[in-house]
Amino acid sequence: MAGSLELQSLTAAEIVHSIETTFSYGEHSVSDGDSFQVGHLRLRTIYTPGHTNDSVCYAVYDGEATSDPFMLFTGDTLFVGGIGRTDLLGRDLQKEQSEKLYDSLYEKVLPLDDGVMIYPAHGAGSICGSNFGNRDVSTIGLERMANHLLNVEMDDFMENMVSMRLPYPPYFKKMEELNTYGPPLLSESLAPKPMGVDDFDKAMHESNKVILDTREPGAFAGSHIPGSYSIWLDGVSYHPGWVLNYGQDVLLVTERREDVETARDYLCRLGFDRVAGYLCTGMRGWRDIGRDFGHLGTLSVSSLKAKLDQSEILLIDVREEREWNEGHIEGAERIYVGQLEEEADRLPRAKPMATICSWGGRGSLGASILKKKGFNEVFNVLGGMRAWYSKGYPVEKNEHSLHQGSEEGVYQENVR
Amino acid sequence: MAGSLELQSLTAAEIVHSIETTFSYGEHSVSDGDSFQVGHLRLRTIYTPGHTNDSVCYAVYDGEATSDPFMLFTGDTLFVGGIGRTDLLGRDLQKEQSEKLYDSLYEKVLPLDDGVMIYPAHGAGSICGSNFGNRDVSTIGLERMANHLLNVEMDDFMENMVSMRLPYPPYFKKMEELNTYGPPLLSESLAPKPMGVDDFDKAMHESNKVILDTREPGAFAGSHIPGSYSIWLDGVSYHPGWVLNYGQDVLLVTERREDVETARDYLCRLGFDRVAGYLCTGMRGWRDIGRDFGHLGTLSVSSLKAKLDQSEILLIDVREEREWNEGHIEGAERIYVGQLEEEADRLPRAKPMATICSWGGRGSLGASILKKKGFNEVFNVLGGMRAWYSKGYPVEKNEHSLHQGSEEGVYQENVR
Amino acid sequence: MAGSLELQSLTAAEIVHSIETTFSYGEHSVSDGDSFQVGHLRLRTIYTPGHTNDSVCYAVYDGEATSDPFMLFTGDTLFVGGIGRTDLLGRDLQKEQSEKLYDSLYEKVLPLDDGVMIYPAHGAGSICGSNFGNRDVSTIGLERMANHLLNVEMDDFMENMVSMRLPYPPYFKKMEELNTYGPPLLSESLAPKPMGVDDFDKAMHESNKVILDTREPGAFAGSHIPGSYSIWLDGVSYHPGWVLNYGQDVLLVTERREDVETARDYLCRLGFDRVAGYLCTGMRGWRDIGRDFGHLGTLSVSSLKAKLDQSEILLIDVREEREWNEGHIEGAERIYVGQLEEEADRLPRAKPMATICSWGGRGSLGASILKKKGFNEVFNVLGGMRAWYSKGYPVEKNEHSLHQGSEEGVYQENVR
Amino acid sequence: MAGSLELQSLTAAEIVHSIETTFSYGEHSVSDGDSFQVGHLRLRTIYTPGHTNDSVCYAVYDGEATSDPFMLFTGDTLFVGGIGRTDLLGRDLQKEQSEKLYDSLYEKVLPLDDGVMIYPAHGAGSICGSNFGNRDVSTIGLERMANHLLNVEMDDFMENMVSMRLPYPPYFKKMEELNTYGPPLLSESLAPKPMGVDDFDKAMHESNKVILDTREPGAFAGSHIPGSYSIWLDGVSYHPGWVLNYGQDVLLVTERREDVETARDYLCRLGFDRVAGYLCTGMRGWRDIGRDFGHLGTLSVSSLKAKLDQSEILLIDVREEREWNEGHIEGAERIYVGQLEEEADRLPRAKPMATICSWGGRGSLGASILKKKGFNEVFNVLGGMRAWYSKGYPVEKNEHSLHQGSEEGVYQENVR
Repeated sequence: MAGSLELQSLTAAEIVHSIETTFSYGEHSVSDGDSFQVGHLRLRTIYTPGHTNDSVCYAVYDGEATSDPFMLFTGDTLFVGGIGRTDLLGRDLQKEQSEKLYDSLYEKVLPLDDGVMIYPAHGAGSICGSNFGNRDVSTIGLERMANHLLNVEMDDFMENMVSMRLPYPPYFKKMEELNTYGPPLLSESLAPKPMGVDDFDKAMHESNKVILDTREPGAFAGSHIPGSYSIWLDGVSYHPGWVLNYGQDVLLVTERREDVETARDYLCRLGFDRVAGYLCTGMRGWRDIGRDFGHLGTLSVSSLKAKLDQSEILLIDVREEREWNEGHIEGAERIYVGQLEEEADRLPRAKPMATICSWGGRGSLGASILKKKGFNEVFNVLGGMRAWYSKGYPVEKNEHSLHQGSEEGVYQENVR
Repeated sequence: MAGSLELQSLTAAEIVHSIETTFSYGEHSVSDGDSFQVGHLRLRTIYTPGHTNDSVCYAVYDGEATSDPFMLFTGDTLFVGGIGRTDLLGRDLQKEQSEKLYDSLYEKVLPLDDGVMIYPAHGAGSICGSNFGNRDVSTIGLERMANHLLNVEMDDFMENMVSMRLPYPPYFKKMEELNTYGPPLLSESLAPKPMGVDDFDKAMHESNKVILDTREPGAFAGSHIPGSYSIWLDGVSYHPGWVLNYGQDVLLVTERREDVETARDYLCRLGFDRVAGYLCTGMRGWRDIGRDFGHLGTLSVSSLKAKLDQSEILLIDVREEREWNEGHIEGAERIYVGQLEEEADRLPRAKPMATICSWGGRGSLGASILKKKGFNEVFNVLGGMRAWYSKGYPVEKNEHSLHQGSEEGVYQENVR
Repeated sequence: MAGSLELQSLTAAEIVHSIETTFSYGEHSVSDGDSFQVGHLRLRTIYTPGHTNDSVCYAVYDGEATSDPFMLFTGDTLFVGGIGRTDLLGRDLQKEQSEKLYDSLYEKVLPLDDGVMIYPAHGAGSICGSNFGNRDVSTIGLERMANHLLNVEMDDFMENMVSMRLPYPPYFKKMEELNTYGPPLLSESLAPKPMGVDDFDKAMHESNKVILDTREPGAFAGSHIPGSYSIWLDGVSYHPGWVLNYGQDVLLVTERREDVETARDYLCRLGFDRVAGYLCTGMRGWRDIGRDFGHLGTLSVSSLKAKLDQSEILLIDVREEREWNEGHIEGAERIYVGQLEEEADRLPRAKPMATICSWGGRGSLGASILKKKGFNEVFNVLGGMRAWYSKGYPVEKNEHSLHQGSEEGVYQENVR
Repeated sequence: MAGSLELQSLTAAEIVHSIETTFSYGEHSVSDGDSFQVGHLRLRTIYTPGHTNDSVCYAVYDGEATSDPFMLFTGDTLFVGGIGRTDLLGRDLQKEQSEKLYDSLYEKVLPLDDGVMIYPAHGAGSICGSNFGNRDVSTIGLERMANHLLNVEMDDFMENMVSMRLPYPPYFKKMEELNTYGPPLLSESLAPKPMGVDDFDKAMHESNKVILDTREPGAFAGSHIPGSYSIWLDGVSYHPGWVLNYGQDVLLVTERREDVETARDYLCRLGFDRVAGYLCTGMRGWRDIGRDFGHLGTLSVSSLKAKLDQSEILLIDVREEREWNEGHIEGAERIYVGQLEEEADRLPRAKPMATICSWGGRGSLGASILKKKGFNEVFNVLGGMRAWYSKGYPVEKNEHSLHQGSEEGVYQENVR
């Protein structure tokens, strides 16, 4: 969601938009070729439709230097190792938008000098494109070398773009609406209310409430409030868009007190601005007064393999189609975590079930959904497909295309 | 451990000691009645032997005011709701020290005005005394009213003091030695080395290494490195003294990156200054490359009760004798967590085992010890005796004395 | 200004008011004797009119303890070393309010145990009373001993109270209004706009603008923007109420970037919520492009004495009447800094002028006012009367009464 | 000064050196072409003598990518808009080193792809080269375009390099020695002692003490301790090397408390590790007890011009020869601030004197030196040559060469 109003409230900055943008806020509109000054720097607008019809890049010039820019803000047009998706206006227009993007990239961006530094609007893990590299910054020259969609004929480019299938989360509609009219300021949202166990327990039984547990999957497995969704803290920046409804009040369970604000900010940026409260005692307070809690089984991949070999367990792979195609475990069934809640009813209840994803995050969300739907014996595979690959266990692959980017980049992190 | 050298290195402050203290550092020695100036304030020394033979209190006077102090630093002589223990010089001297403490309290401290504010050296939870209240600050008047050992005849006082049984952890000897010669500065200890999974795995198999996992009990239960001790972060300020040896190198597994410094500082203050490294990927990195991990079962008290009713489980209560006497579950066996490692071999291995403490922290340490000793099916009761009491389940009590203080104060905390 | 709404927006706390209070916000009203629970603590309302007619104290009880409170929030009724002023409802009612305050103190507060700790609503330096001590916390017993208005007969008490003359700043009216209807949240005020030299210069020449320079008096003397008021940063919490008008937009010049928020918050709490911008280059940016700047002379007290001895200078003492009465320099003229702007025109312009206050802060404000009014040669005495006293130079005194409290406490601070 | 040991103590990192380096610490030595791995990245050593004989660059490769690097750490070989100086081994070897540098740049660095990002060891303002741009990061392509010494024939390159005259501060010798044997850790230096006015006054009169006042020039002008040097806080990272001796104990006067650590760290990095204490009351405490203080006059450039037109003042330009050549005021005398103390005695004492530099920082140091040498009426021109240029006042120029870089970049900063 656009943070420009947020930034403006903190810094008194003025907002510049593409003239094609219909936002109902912002002080200035610019068209292709328009320049404006920021301190000693001059910014020139380059109109680059394709991802959307109001996409622009901004080339930055040193006031005193020659006519060449030294850097380029590339928005959602060009990423480090990737390019913008072209399906946001619908499958019908995907071909047309891809042609526009080709022109924008090959006619306007790539002709710049190899030495120009580029700063994209998204880093690794955004779903506004695929195949992102691990750096935040790159250069025209490096992208020309390493970004495979910048080195192809138009036919290949088009073939790749129109066959690209990326998830389209339900919250995109909400975001578009908020971006247009100006998202609410974080500073104006009320503080989530600290709730003791009794308050929390009462609130969670009122209508329209949903519990979000942001602790890491291992801790969720050890103990959790029955009925809660498990989304690890960083995952809150994306996954709630698949499982929460906009009319619901969110109740948070977090690992530490400071996580409440992080989770609240992530939720607000997805448009979920109704965070009613949080369990201020943590899970420990819940347990200490004897409330019942749920737990999940956890499996290492070697235990999983043993159970699969004995046909003792039903394995649900909750990853995206793209990831599945690159490699999955024989016998697993694929249901994307964002669709699991509605598909769960058709699953058999005879056997224990295990969920697997890339490392265990979405697996925990999946497992929490199955518990909510009444499945009793549910395991989450900690380590996920990464661990499975590391062990050298066998995988099945589907054929895959040029853009086999992995979404896992998002979730890479060490102990924080 | 004394932090005065640490403070001196940060602030250039001068150190004042009781003249009875044999510390080999510090600039000034003071005897009963000696005064010195700190800025506008005057501090007067009051010699108050009892807890040790070099105990002093410092009375604080406003430079311009009358001859009455307005506050008193009470050291280990008087706490909020408690008084100093008198057994540190050995059981033989406990009676003699208690008499000294009686005189110090009744002849020197209590005669001060009721309005004098007191600031003790320890808050709730220190083992330098028992029965501590929940505030950091109090007044002579409030203690006279509410601190029951300040309202008794000498006979009652003595009877209570000599019968007091408090744990005497093995690290006390080390602390005394360090305090005498000046503890090493935290700023001089090397940074714990960040270790990837391979480095960590290699290091943990070298001789003289021990793994300390500081995550909360629920997370430890979900997954942990086999062979590690579980001590939740705040518990690291005390419990390592019971299970680690001073010659060992400690390897840390933490919930978050910033916990490494906290754990390191706690360990150093206990005299364990050999923190070799930490798993910089967190448990997740361990799982992600397919390493096997252990897990514990977790039980709520209602599940525990059901299992006990069916005689399906053997329950070990790992709390102190004092806590046990106040109330415990019928059929449980008491082994203090600090003695569990050496006593484990005599336990039967036929049944699943569960550990219980006040809330689950020491229970997790106990369960981790049992796993190390080769017990297979081990559960930790999350919520512990607090949850058991909250549910109103039956307990057995032993008779108890005046000083039935609870050590649980230490562990009270909310989500941080 | 009341910060309860601010706190509520950050913590979701509920607001409790005295039932006599007419505030148009807050969830709960309490009368004398009413109790309510906050976590484990119980608070009991004690109605203590005098300072205002809705004044209350709150006594705090430990849930489990006896019927005696262990602390008391004393609001504006009792301070450390002082008591509340009784003239806020006007001179006509001063006697009546003083009688009420006497009853509140002697009948309701002082009968509490000496050991009860007290936490007042203001610390040293507030103008809601005089004679404040330097601690934040005290006890009933200590105040009974050291607070001289708690040890007197009613006649003496009344005589002192009705003769008490304290400044009544113009902003009090505004505060009362804001407190009643609920002050605006700090988080909702717009960020002051960063302005380059050109923007600032343009803005300062628009109508209804006023420049506030929050740097320390020595730096202001070295160079400043002509026409600006000098109020050192901490002084912004009080003095703007004497020189700014509520309709004006404030432009800030600060020592460091982070001071902008501090100054803005102070101004907002005084009701000045129109902080239009700040000079983001600092004074240095102003000087670096060649803008003219003003400067003041600075005098040490020895230089001042030499000039006075030679009748070379006219000395204006800008302190309060109370401070003047305690001691002033022979030959000085007293004009309170808050009245200097309107009184300046009657001053002679023949001689150089010097301003003096307690240390140099209000002197700098006074000197900046004289410069604005067109006086050319203006000096500020750095060190002020404190330095004069330290040197042992002669002073003249007026007779003074029991309540000779000094306001200087506010300004005591070291390098921050 | 090398910070690698410092970093190692904080992170347990291993240290890699050029094999030509004689440092007596570090775990690894590398020669031209040697590679090593840091996490997923591979670093390849490129030996680039010229600035020194052990200079290396490190090219960084993405583990999975092709054989081309994506970034280059260029050390002191190539800067943004500049290149390394070649005179550090002495004027005799300047030609030889310049030839080596030419080869390193033209044979080894420039042949890399234009898109490669470069990260130099110094930013704007280091004296390890001149002509630095304002960005921290650049690319081979951008430098090839805009860095004028990368676009010339060898003859032009050599002519420029051998004629380059850059200051060679006395502390360089000390730095070299410290770098070789391993600089002391910041964490091991004692905390500067907080000193009240009396302690400070006593200490400053002991032998071998020097006072450093780090407040901004305007504040120093308003009041300062007689005998102190004025070096604004950021200037402490460089200028003390010209005026302090290594055997002296430094006493600090700062604007704010937190500046003490900043100044201490800067001084330690220059090898001045004897910071004895700081005036904990700030200048205000000094003034408040009536100590005498010095002050400087301040001049705007318009006032300066008026005084020069009337021949009322003697103007000393304390900038470097390079800056002087680019433009100076007619009638000024140039004495570099680093030489002023020894040259001051030959200056006439009949007239008032003014110092000028680029903005007022070095001017304040110069003025403080003149005051120490007994000159009475000394002014500092606030705004300096920048303000003079901004006003369009006339300047005289000396012919200048290709490398007319300005050192002023160092001093650019806004209100912090």
